[in-house]
Amino acid sequence: MDLRPPRGFRDIPPDLAILRKELMGRVEAVYRRYGFDPLETPAVESWEVLAGKYGEEAEGRLIWRFKDPWSDREYALRYDLTVPLARYIASHPEIPMPFKRYQIAPVWRHDEPQRGRYREFYQADVDVVGSPYPEADAEIINVIVDALDALGVGSGFRVLINDRRILAGIFEEELSLKDPLAVYRIIDKLDKVGEEGVRAELERLLGAPAASKVMEVISIKGDVADSLDRLSREHGSNATLMKGVEHLRQVAQLVRRPQALEFSMSLVRGLDYYTGPILEVVLDRPRIGSVAGGGRYDNLISLFAKREVPATGASIGIDRLIDAGLEVGLFRADRRTYTQVMVVNVRPESYAYAWRVADVLRSWGFSVRVDLNRSGQDEQRRRALKLGVPVVAFVGPQEEASGSVTLYSPSKGERLTVRLEEARQALERLLS
Amino acid sequence: MDLRPPRGFRDIPPDLAILRKELMGRVEAVYRRYGFDPLETPAVESWEVLAGKYGEEAEGRLIWRFKDPWSDREYALRYDLTVPLARYIASHPEIPMPFKRYQIAPVWRHDEPQRGRYREFYQADVDVVGSPYPEADAEIINVIVDALDALGVGSGFRVLINDRRILAGIFEEELSLKDPLAVYRIIDKLDKVGEEGVRAELERLLGAPAASKVMEVISIKGDVADSLDRLSREHGSNATLMKGVEHLRQVAQLVRRPQALEFSMSLVRGLDYYTGPILEVVLDRPRIGSVAGGGRYDNLISLFAKREVPATGASIGIDRLIDAGLEVGLFRADRRTYTQVMVVNVRPESYAYAWRVADVLRSWGFSVRVDLNRSGQDEQRRRALKLGVPVVAFVGPQEEASGSVTLYSPSKGERLTVRLEEARQALERLLS
Repeated sequence: MDLRPPRGFRDIPPDLAILRKELMGRVEAVYRRYGFDPLETPAVESWEVLAGKYGEEAEGRLIWRFKDPWSDREYALRYDLTVPLARYIASHPEIPMPFKRYQIAPVWRHDEPQRGRYREFYQADVDVVGSPYPEADAEIINVIVDALDALGVGSGFRVLINDRRILAGIFEEELSLKDPLAVYRIIDKLDKVGEEGVRAELERLLGAPAASKVMEVISIKGDVADSLDRLSREHGSNATLMKGVEHLRQVAQLVRRPQALEFSMSLVRGLDYYTGPILEVVLDRPRIGSVAGGGRYDNLISLFAKREVPATGASIGIDRLIDAGLEVGLFRADRRTYTQVMVVNVRPESYAYAWRVADVLRSWGFSVRVDLNRSGQDEQRRRALKLGVPVVAFVGPQEEASGSVTLYSPSKGERLTVRLEEARQALERLLS
Repeated sequence: MDLRPPRGFRDIPPDLAILRKELMGRVEAVYRRYGFDPLETPAVESWEVLAGKYGEEAEGRLIWRFKDPWSDREYALRYDLTVPLARYIASHPEIPMPFKRYQIAPVWRHDEPQRGRYREFYQADVDVVGSPYPEADAEIINVIVDALDALGVGSGFRVLINDRRILAGIFEEELSLKDPLAVYRIIDKLDKVGEEGVRAELERLLGAPAASKVMEVISIKGDVADSLDRLSREHGSNATLMKGVEHLRQVAQLVRRPQALEFSMSLVRGLDYYTGPILEVVLDRPRIGSVAGGGRYDNLISLFAKREVPATGASIGIDRLIDAGLEVGLFRADRRTYTQVMVVNVRPESYAYAWRVADVLRSWGFSVRVDLNRSGQDEQRRRALKLGVPVVAFVGPQEEASGSVTLYSPSKGERLTVRLEEARQALERLLS
């Protein structure tokens, strides 16, 4: 039997799990600081809820869709956290608006596994539902930027922005493309297949002259104000486009770190449901595609309910970001245990005292292991060393007789015997 | 379209999600305090990994088993966290033993939905792999008892214990039952179908005389020492049984709160893989079945690898425990938001200053919302009230001119205007 997880899935060993928990905790703290609250939707959705929301490729190949053998119903593992949120909002008209929610949870995609791309991966979503204003889009960018800061990414990233109305104004109204979503999906592959690859695909779909025009348009990128000015000059009479330009201009004014923003006409986002501003965060290095993305989806909720509810949000790809950070040395999965103290009982007869010492240290909040294998002293010490436990607490007949414990920090090279009641302070110092 | 989650699944709204996160955090803190580390296995397993591990009912009806339409491979959603752990251990012979791990994550069971029983629910598992000794079983009981304490359950629960070797000694060796697992599964329903229900099912399977004997045996329950003494007296020559008796006796001596323990011969656990001590935690009220359970499974890992690796563990049923706690008033899902401060901008022109105030408060770690809907002052205040935000921070032209903020606590009935730099202390006081 193959003992590995299914292809594209991973077991997360303690060192990586400890790192991931730490990083997800930091992201969650930032989300809360902005007043977002948790809403959790299930992993399993009815297939009809996901159908028609993500576009051809997702539907035909990427969604983990399945028939329940017992009931013959069609289900799917959630493909993202946004469509389930839209379903929830649609079915709860009583929720006060704006509704600000986050969810940090796995999603499943039947993708070809490769570097930074798994079939199960964590997304950290943050959304404002119920505001049509640039304020909401700006807050989403601010919370994402702060979260990346909290992860230690520093200034090593850019937030690419565009607006679906700018794309629509040019590609649908001015160039009159019949199937703009197909064009967007081709453009979306720019990072993966390069400029020539995109041009070739566009030529196949549109013919050479139209493809050239598209390639020219998507070359607009750089400073936000400059790009928006140029678009206003060249397409000022295009009302759809100008709505996008004006909206983005206001967003850019509200963003706390405008120097991180960059306009990119080739940013289109692969998903069908976006209607306004869209964004993607790319790291300076390594180049592994985007680590966060999102945008405004004012029409998604109305696919479920007969109400228009504007919404905007973004998502950090936690697992891809961790892979990238590990690669460039930003993160290290070097902590193998939460254990702070390994109690080593020097003699079998000290067992009961060793357990009592462990209990006392735990009551102070320390993470403590005791021997569970009736091992000799040497074996217990080897284990502490292997795990990288920062403090070893030796307990033997002498310590028991005097109600004390001998603490040893391998990294500080320090060893001291203290009365048990005084061990707390000594431990705090050794662990600092 | 039906906008509810699939049958048996739930959306967890913010108030419940906030409560669940709080409670899972407390359990996790206790698990870490005992030196357990996180290991995370995927939600999706190959079907063959789960097959043959849980018994007939699970396999024939309860496992969410499915064929991937793209590859025709057979997968399953994990049914518990133990079998995936066993697969992981089997495939990583290099792991230092004992390996102590926890995982708090959802599992999926295709059960008939009812009170406290969902098709997706969180389990909080804790396991010691690599120790055959009663010390490991006792530590599992201790960590579970401490976790229930941390949840505020107090002394309102009992830990029922038994040992599969005691069951085997009597039912397999003395009564020579042909299919003991089938008998265990019937006994396991005692809570659900009552004594007469179990007797009727046993009579169908075994005939009346054998059923009576089984009923008599499973009536042994109560004080651990008394029960083990009685078993020694009545079955002292049964070597299998006596191994269980001796093991349990040592476990009971190591448990920190022995008064919570109760021996119960009718405790059998429904899963096939247990081999030694087994346990279940039942609340005094409400009577909703067990909220935690587990046991020793020394042969499970050898189903995957040609090594014998002893292991023991237990699992808290987080969602069932929360339902029970909500029902008896132990928990309340009354916090609707993490937001501590709602910044209300009194005049549209104070918008920029309001955002600056929010940024400053956030930089101190407070959870802060600002208006994203260009709403009037009254509307912003109504929203703060509805959400139950504890402090409202008013910001208008006066505050902007003096670099201050007006803080108001509805619950304390207190209102004060302070300079922005001094707002931190004032806020801490109002929030305390």
